[in-house]
This record gives sequence, structure tokens and C-alpha cells, in this order.
Amino acid sequence: MSTTPYPLLTSVDDPADLRRLSRAELKQLATELRAFVLDSVSKTGGHLSSNLGTVELTVALHHVFHTPEDRLVWDVGHQTYPHKILTGRRERMATLRQLGGLSGFPQRAESEYDTFGTAHSSTSISAALGMALAAKQRGEERHCVAIIGDGAMTAGMAFEALNNAGVADANLLVILNDNDMSISPPVGALNRYLAQLMSGQFYAKARDVGKSVLKNAPPLLELAKRFEQQAKGMVVPATLFEKFGFNYIGPIDGHDLDSLIPTLENIKGLKGPQFLHVVTKKGQGYKLAEADPVAYHGPGKFDPEVGLTKPATPPKQTFTQVFGQWLCDMAARDMRLVGITPAMREGSGMVEFHQRFPDRYYDVGIAEQHAVTFAGGMACEGVKPVVAIYSTFLQRAYDQLIHDVALQNLPVVFALDRAGLVGADGATHAGAYDIAFVRCIPNMSLACPADERECRQLLSTAYEQNHPVAVRYPRGSGAGVAPLADLDGLPFGKGEIRRQRKGAAGNGPRIAILAFGTLLYPALAAGEALDATVANMRWVKPLDTALLLEIAASHDALVTVEEGSVMGGAGSAVCEALNAAGLALPVLQLGLPDAFIEHGDPAKLLALQGLDAAGIQRAITQRFIAAS
Amino acid sequence: MSTTPYPLLTSVDDPADLRRLSRAELKQLATELRAFVLDSVSKTGGHLSSNLGTVELTVALHHVFHTPEDRLVWDVGHQTYPHKILTGRRERMATLRQLGGLSGFPQRAESEYDTFGTAHSSTSISAALGMALAAKQRGEERHCVAIIGDGAMTAGMAFEALNNAGVADANLLVILNDNDMSISPPVGALNRYLAQLMSGQFYAKARDVGKSVLKNAPPLLELAKRFEQQAKGMVVPATLFEKFGFNYIGPIDGHDLDSLIPTLENIKGLKGPQFLHVVTKKGQGYKLAEADPVAYHGPGKFDPEVGLTKPATPPKQTFTQVFGQWLCDMAARDMRLVGITPAMREGSGMVEFHQRFPDRYYDVGIAEQHAVTFAGGMACEGVKPVVAIYSTFLQRAYDQLIHDVALQNLPVVFALDRAGLVGADGATHAGAYDIAFVRCIPNMSLACPADERECRQLLSTAYEQNHPVAVRYPRGSGAGVAPLADLDGLPFGKGEIRRQRKGAAGNGPRIAILAFGTLLYPALAAGEALDATVANMRWVKPLDTALLLEIAASHDALVTVEEGSVMGGAGSAVCEALNAAGLALPVLQLGLPDAFIEHGDPAKLLALQGLDAAGIQRAITQRFIAAS
Repeated sequence: MSTTPYPLLTSVDDPADLRRLSRAELKQLATELRAFVLDSVSKTGGHLSSNLGTVELTVALHHVFHTPEDRLVWDVGHQTYPHKILTGRRERMATLRQLGGLSGFPQRAESEYDTFGTAHSSTSISAALGMALAAKQRGEERHCVAIIGDGAMTAGMAFEALNNAGVADANLLVILNDNDMSISPPVGALNRYLAQLMSGQFYAKARDVGKSVLKNAPPLLELAKRFEQQAKGMVVPATLFEKFGFNYIGPIDGHDLDSLIPTLENIKGLKGPQFLHVVTKKGQGYKLAEADPVAYHGPGKFDPEVGLTKPATPPKQTFTQVFGQWLCDMAARDMRLVGITPAMREGSGMVEFHQRFPDRYYDVGIAEQHAVTFAGGMACEGVKPVVAIYSTFLQRAYDQLIHDVALQNLPVVFALDRAGLVGADGATHAGAYDIAFVRCIPNMSLACPADERECRQLLSTAYEQNHPVAVRYPRGSGAGVAPLADLDGLPFGKGEIRRQRKGAAGNGPRIAILAFGTLLYPALAAGEALDATVANMRWVKPLDTALLLEIAASHDALVTVEEGSVMGGAGSAVCEALNAAGLALPVLQLGLPDAFIEHGDPAKLLALQGLDAAGIQRAITQRFIAAS
Repeated sequence: MSTTPYPLLTSVDDPADLRRLSRAELKQLATELRAFVLDSVSKTGGHLSSNLGTVELTVALHHVFHTPEDRLVWDVGHQTYPHKILTGRRERMATLRQLGGLSGFPQRAESEYDTFGTAHSSTSISAALGMALAAKQRGEERHCVAIIGDGAMTAGMAFEALNNAGVADANLLVILNDNDMSISPPVGALNRYLAQLMSGQFYAKARDVGKSVLKNAPPLLELAKRFEQQAKGMVVPATLFEKFGFNYIGPIDGHDLDSLIPTLENIKGLKGPQFLHVVTKKGQGYKLAEADPVAYHGPGKFDPEVGLTKPATPPKQTFTQVFGQWLCDMAARDMRLVGITPAMREGSGMVEFHQRFPDRYYDVGIAEQHAVTFAGGMACEGVKPVVAIYSTFLQRAYDQLIHDVALQNLPVVFALDRAGLVGADGATHAGAYDIAFVRCIPNMSLACPADERECRQLLSTAYEQNHPVAVRYPRGSGAGVAPLADLDGLPFGKGEIRRQRKGAAGNGPRIAILAFGTLLYPALAAGEALDATVANMRWVKPLDTALLLEIAASHDALVTVEEGSVMGGAGSAVCEALNAAGLALPVLQLGLPDAFIEHGDPAKLLALQGLDAAGIQRAITQRFIAAS
């Protein structure tokens, strides 16, 4: 009778439904769930490979544990589509990552099954340990589970949490979801080590032994003993994680419900910190994604029958690409240049650089703190590091920026991608704060190119300096002003007037718009409509005070425009400079509000914040013109 | 003929002198150096226990390695007095931590032997790895050595660096200076583990074997093999650090030059990442410090014959003590309260809380990132975490503050000690930026009590809120306004007028001073002298806009005063609020400049920045009165 391709899945509106299913039915459910994920992501875009990899693990966890009373904390969280589908959000998957729709990450506000919001990596063990110890303190019996990938394990924070959990007498389960790859190819000794394990005889043997042991379902003590003999000491990760006080179990096949469910059931009965090593494959069950999980990490819409195709018209050049090209060109000219990334080779546009200059390419893993201080060490020795890092991830190395780089005034260039709103990834990834948190640091400079051409030029200017400089640019493309081929910079700390007020309309207030970054273009449109002067300020720090004072002397009111938090932002830098000069001028500060902004289409989000041409014009009119 | 108690030490002006000494002379040098350190620190105050622990290691390193061409990076750096004394700064030790004198930490600007400035923990491996790979890239032959304590090893950043170093083909030596204690008693599985090792049979045996092997000075291969048999696998840290790709050697006695020198000489010949485990004792050679290394961690001046004594008059109550008392009182009233510290029990005033409420006390180790997210996890479950953390160390958990706590609007209280200038510790420890970097985060509130009484009250107010609140207060004591015994708070987000302008003097400009924090008191003195209104704003965020607008309506000019960076600080919050209200008033922003401020007496440093009563009065007069 059923016409749905998902007869079992559509009967599961809640994990309680799933707990009633037999093992055979659970396998069928997993099959339907995988098909649903593929179909759904192919229609909305989103993360694919990681979600195909967690299907069985998600089914097993909700089957064995009593969610939401038991707490699941998913590290990074982009692998939680199966979890969302099984926890009452199946129907809403069509709205994924769209304005007002489901988030691409777990969110406490979205579901009681999302116990902790994640998106940045390596937070899950800390959060789950906090939950476990809170439960203990409140006398509540519940299980707390952190599910973390091998890539996320390279971040120091995960080690801090493991180290602390080992001594805390908490009922915590950490599941290492080992898929042998992070976003970029695995780096770091730990990853290499896990990969060796995967390919070696020991692993296969231990896995087989593990399986047969599990199938016989022996009493727990016997199981533990056999594991000790068979896996520990021989299969080496045991010793690593046991150093931290965990009881290591595994590795087991994370796509095999017959391994997962009995093991998890057993672990439920154990006390103290438990560590389960599960091996999964990104893209599992979809051949194209299995073959190229990086390409299918976060695809746009596509036809699952065909797979990803090249777009008919080439897309506009992104700022990321402009950076990548600049990095190669500058590296070709200057042997001293090195490029550093914390595991974001693709996202930061460093694939070509890696291929052409492998000896000067450093992927340090998901380890932002280390990346920045490592760059500082290199800069001490006369090489010239360029650290490519998303604005939101520089937050993870803030002390290193202050204490290790800026305090010593070391010449490190920071290429801050994803500055401003980021669209579908939402509030967790917004690069909204960097202007405020970078400009308060002595010795730091901060440039904000208005378009692609300036991005290349300002990177060159940054590279020429003998002190630390950050260059911030947004996700995606800009006005489309093609970069020049040369590597000439723009004057350090200098802006420019892009439009001069004509004043033909009579005696309205003389308004000047000071634009910082890519919002120059909507500001120019507003300036045209209102006959306002428009300056392209280019540098938040040092601020072009000479230009500012010249403008202040010939205008009645100033408007600052930036794609960043108004609080402490570039507009406040303008006010500080005016105050220092003893000037008191009306200033309208336009930028991002004091609120976290959810996911959605970037252009729409900017318009909602009044940061498109119409919004800027409207705000200026309301403040200075309608009233005058 | 010599009358100096340091005949050999005074002949060493440079490590080159030291390299010419025989083993017997080196031992004599170490004895003199230890006596000099004790004598010197007893006269200036400073770090003692850690420096008594590194005497022999420092002698050995400068003897074996060709400094400064070989690079030594000392983690934390408060153990570098012996290093400073041996590298041409013996005479200047009398100026230690004083204005214009030697820094208490390594500083690149101070000496070419200080290859990397340190102070915050766990940066050394990253920096030394950067140096090693830079040397490789430039084709320079040099050794790069990181010396790191066991406490610093608990920070994730150290693991990130170890993990990266293991795969990088670099000639890096990491020396674990294992003294079995960090600033507070050891925490974390790693520390416990090292302590077990120290007390066990394996360790003693391995150490003895290690010694005899070293004394016979066998060929390297033989040495390595024996170590493998005797130490690895049996003495367990080997397996932990070898997981990261290091060649583990040790443990050896760090006070025995006959162990240190031959081992280091051997290691010089090895390629790839090396890990040497050295065991030292904090306070070594000074019985009182050995018995109580925590008390002698950072003493003031004292008589070495007598040791530390209780001051005749009890010192003024510090803000740290006010916090500690509040924490105990609130914990006694509210069972839900938990206290979290990243290894700063003493510094944060949590000793009594730990003793009285051991089940609700969490020392997570030097692990600020984990501390904050762990607090977030607990807050999800209905317990009420108070995170005690220095302003400068919150920089190490900035992303966790944004992404894990503020974005989810979790009720966590942050007690930010050491906000503003910190005196003798200098620029690395300055809490100068927190106003700027906290207030740009949505959902965060930030209070700045003016005195001890308000500190307690605002902590209570913060605790009552259902969202994250930070309370910042400076090092040391304040105006001396005794806290009240109750736990009543002050109104959330509300300031107060403390002095109303009288206006009797006639028609000068009507000036209002808006003070944020403890500088209220010098501001009041300046206000009295100039007949200005003085407001105690209390909250940077939310700003008391109603009060601000009321003041703005009745005054001609505003002066903001804060012990924090002007860039992005509370003064800019005032300007943003004025701009939002459409007001343009002359504003003078007083606070910390855009520069790193060195160590020195706190009151003197504030006066140099014009942040005492006279300075505030002078600045206001120059700007608003002399000109009018």
C-alpha cells in the first residue's frame, strides 16, 4: 500500500518509535535514512559525506540511549542530519540552512535533542563532561555521550577535556568517530597514527576478534578481559587514551549495527570515563562521495544520479580565490614566504599553493592556537608567515595573537576569510567581531579591502610591513573588480575619497559616508542617491586620520558603514579619532547589531540588517534628512 | 683575594665563558648561582621556587648548546632568572620587575638570548617548532629547544604543538621539566600519572639504570637501545610522548650535571624530534621553599635566614579576597553554585572555597578553553558555574566564550581578576583588552565595580542573571570600602551619580565624568577640584543609557575614565549610545593607550598614563577648560 520510498522512516517521529524496532528493522531504517539524507541534501545543499558516515551510529545511539534524558553532544555538528531526521525534524529538512529553516548544526533552541550547540570543532568532550558532572552533583542518573571525529581530536581543547575527564569520576562516554580524514587530508601524528592502524594487520585482526566477541555477547568482565588481551597494547590507540584515564574499547565497525548496538548496551553498564573507537567512512553508501569525500563535504544542490557537475557559466571569482592566487604569486617572488593553515586548505584557497610550494606549506591540523604561535616562532627567524584563517576561527587563537605575535611585534600576515556574515553556516561561523577584537591590540594593523582588486593589493601592502597585519574579507565574491596582475600594494593606512558631494541640491546637511570594506559599493549607491561624499577607508587600523579630519572639516554629519559589529567596530574607531581631535560631529554608525544572526541567504541577511544600498539610504534619510 | 661570595659566577659574563669551565667548575658555578638567585629574589621579590629548580638545567643547556645561535625557548618564563644571570644580566637583577628594570620573563627586546617572549603558559613548543622549521627552510644548522613544565603540559596548545612536531621533520628538542607541581597542586590525569611515576619502583630503577648508562658514555646506538629496553614500555611516559612521534629519553635527575650534560651532548647528535624528561624540584636547595614551594612561588622581599613572615600590619583586603569570600558565602546559600578555575586556586582566591566545598570545586588544570566550555555544559544542566579567571587568561578562551557560552546565552558568571594594569608582571599579564573584547559579544554583560563593596554586590547581581555576565576587578586592593555582609545585589545595568556639579563658579563648561570601575575614586577627586559631575557607571554592558542621556542633556562635555584600552572600550560604548540617540557632544576618552605597558609599580604606571587624580584633572583642564 505504501507509496513512500521510506515506509519505516516515516513511521519514526521520535526516538521512542525507534527503540521499539527489531535489529532487522533498524537495519532497514538505516538504509532508508541514508537514502533520505542523500535525497534531502541533493535538494538543499549542505553537508553530505559526514552525514552519510553517521547513519548507523545515530540509529544505534538513539536506540540504546534514552534520549533526550541521556545527552548526546555531537562535535562540530555538521554530521547531525540523521539525528535531526530521527528526532522529529524529518519534514523540515527541506528548509535546511535557509532563513527561518533548520540550522545545519545542532541548536538548543531548535530541539530538546540538541543538548549543546556545536559548529566549531573539539568542544564536545568539555560540554559532555560538564553535563556529566552536573548530573552527578544533582543526583541525576543519565548518560552523557560526546561523539567526536579524528580530525577534531587534534585540537588542544579535546586533549584538555580528555585529561580533565580522566580524573573526574564521571559517567562519560567519548566516541571517537574515526573516518580517517578531516576536512582536508589528515595531518598530525595522531592522524597518521590512526591511518597506520587502519591499514595494518593488527587492526583487521582486532576488529575480527572484536566482532566475534561481541556476537557471542559474553559477560562484561570476560569481554573486557578479552579486549584487554586482544586490543590493548597491540592495537595502540588504547594506550594513548588510557593514559588519560579512560577505559578504551574498540575499534569497531561504525556501519555495523551488530557491532554498535551490543557494544553500546554493554558500555551503558560501565562506570567512569569510557572511550569507544568507532571506524566509519565519510560518504558511506554513495559511491561518488566515498570516492571523493572532500568534494562531497559540503556540496550545493545536485542530481544524485549524476553527481556534481561543473556549472555552465563559471562562477564569479571569490575573495578566497583572490587570496590563493596572491599567495602563489607572492611565494613565487619571495622565497621567504610560508603559508600556514589550521586544517582549512580547501576553504582558505590554498590547494594550488600546497601543490606548487609543498615545502612552504604548513597544515598544522585543527590547532589554531598552535598555528599562530608557530607563525610567531617562524617570524622570529626571518621567514615570512602568512596565516590563512577564518575570522571566526581567529577567535580560537586570540591570546596567541596578543601575547605571542602582537606583543613582540612580529611580522605575520593574517588573511581573515569569512569576515562578516557567512550565510548558510549561520551565527556560529559569523566573522562579526574581528574588527573589535583585533583593533584593540597594540601593534596590530587591520585592512578591509572593498573589492577583489583591493584585496590583492592590501595583501601585498600587509606583506610589506614589518609588524603584524590582518586583512579581512568576506565569504564569496564581491563587486567583481578584477585584480591586477602585479604585486604592488596600496599606501599603508591610507583611504580615498570615492565620491565627492556635489552640493547642487541646496542647503541640506553635508553628509559623508565612511565605508570600511565591501559595503563600499552599496554605500556608493546610497551616496549617489543622496548626494553624499563617500570615502573608501580601507584601513580600520591605522585609521586614516588625515582623511577623516579633512572630511570632518567640510561636512555636517558622518555615516560609518561596516560589515562587522557596531560595538567596538570601525565606526567607534572613527569616533575615537574625532574625540582625540576635539571634534564633536553627528555620527551614524551602521553595521551588525548586538545580536547573533542566524543562517540564511547572505544578501537577504544584509538587507534585513539594513546594510544594502536601500537600507543605508533609508537610515541616513531617517537620521539626517527627514529630520532636517 | 676575592671577597665576593660568587668568585666563579662573577667571571661568567656570557655563556661562552661558561663553556670553558670543567665539570667540577660547573658544579661550583651552579652552587654560586643558586645562592645568587636566592639572595637576589629575597631583595627584589619575584619568582623563587621555579628558579631554584632550574639552576643546573640552565647551566647544562648553556654549556652544551651554542647560545644564542641555538635557540632556547623557556615556557612560562618565570624560571629564567638563572638564564638571565648567565647571559650578561647579573648586575641588573637588582632592578627585576621594577619600572625600567629587567622583566620577570624573557623578552626579545632585552637580550638576544631571549629568543621568544613568554609568560602565558604552553607556548614554547609551538614557537620552538616554528624556529626549527624556519632554520630548516633557510638552510641554517641550529638547535631549537623548548623547556616546558609538567603543569604547562596540561594545556591543549602544548598537545597541538607536540602533535604537529611529531610529523614535522624538524630538529626540535622538547625538555619536560617535571617538578611534580604546577602553581596549584597538580591536577589532571597526566599530572597524577607523572606523580605515580615519581613515587613508584619503576622510576627509581630506571633512573639508576639511566645514570649508570650515562656514566659509561656508551656509543649512541647502544645508549638508545638500552633506554628502549630499560625505560620505554616500563617507564610509561615514553609511550605517551612517542605516540606523537618523539624519541623519548629519560627520566633523568635535573639537578645532576653528570646526568644532564652527557645526555644533552648525546641528544645534540640526534635528528628529528627529541623528548627529554627531566625531573627537578621546585625550591631545590632552599629548605623553606622545598617544604612549601607554593608559598615561595612568588614571594615579596624577605630575609632568607628567617623566611617569609606575617606582616606586622595586616594588608588591605584585595579584590581577590572579596571574590573568595563572596564565593563561599554564595555557595553556602545556593547549593547549585560550582566554582571553576584553570589551575589558579591561590591566585583567584579559591583556597577556602576548595576546602569548604570540595565537591563543588573544579580545578581543570591549565586549560582555559576547556574550563569555559565545561562551565557551559554544566550551565545547560541547571547548576550555576562561576569561572574565576584572570582577564588576560580569558583571552585564551575567547572562542569558547562566544561560541559555547554567549551564543547559547548560558548563565555563567566570569570573575575577571587582574583587569587593568597588573604591575610587576608587566605587559604579558595586563588585563587591558577585556572591555573591548567582551562587550562586542551579544548576550554578554560586563560589570566593573568601583570598590570592594560593589565588587561583592555586582558579583551577586551577576549571579542572579539568567545569561552570561563578567565582573572585572583589578589586582590588589581598591579604595578600601568594606563589603557588606549580605548577598544583596545592585540593580542590573544601572549606574549612579556620585557627585553633582554645583555650578557656583559661573559659566565654565558643564563637565560630567563617567567613571567605569575603580578609577571612580581619582575621578571623584578630579571632579571635586574642577566642580564636575561624576557618575559611577558600574556597567559597561548594558550601558545605563537612561543615566547617560540624562547627564548628556544637562552638561556640555563628557569625560570617560576606565582602566582598559581606549580602543573599543567603555568610552566608545558611551559614544555609540550618544550616536544612537542622535547626540553629538564633546567627549574626552581617558584610559589605557594603544601600546603595551611594561612592568613597574601599579600606582606609578597609572600616573604615567595620566590615570591618577592629577592626570585626570590635567587632561580635562587642557581639553575643556584651558581652551574655553
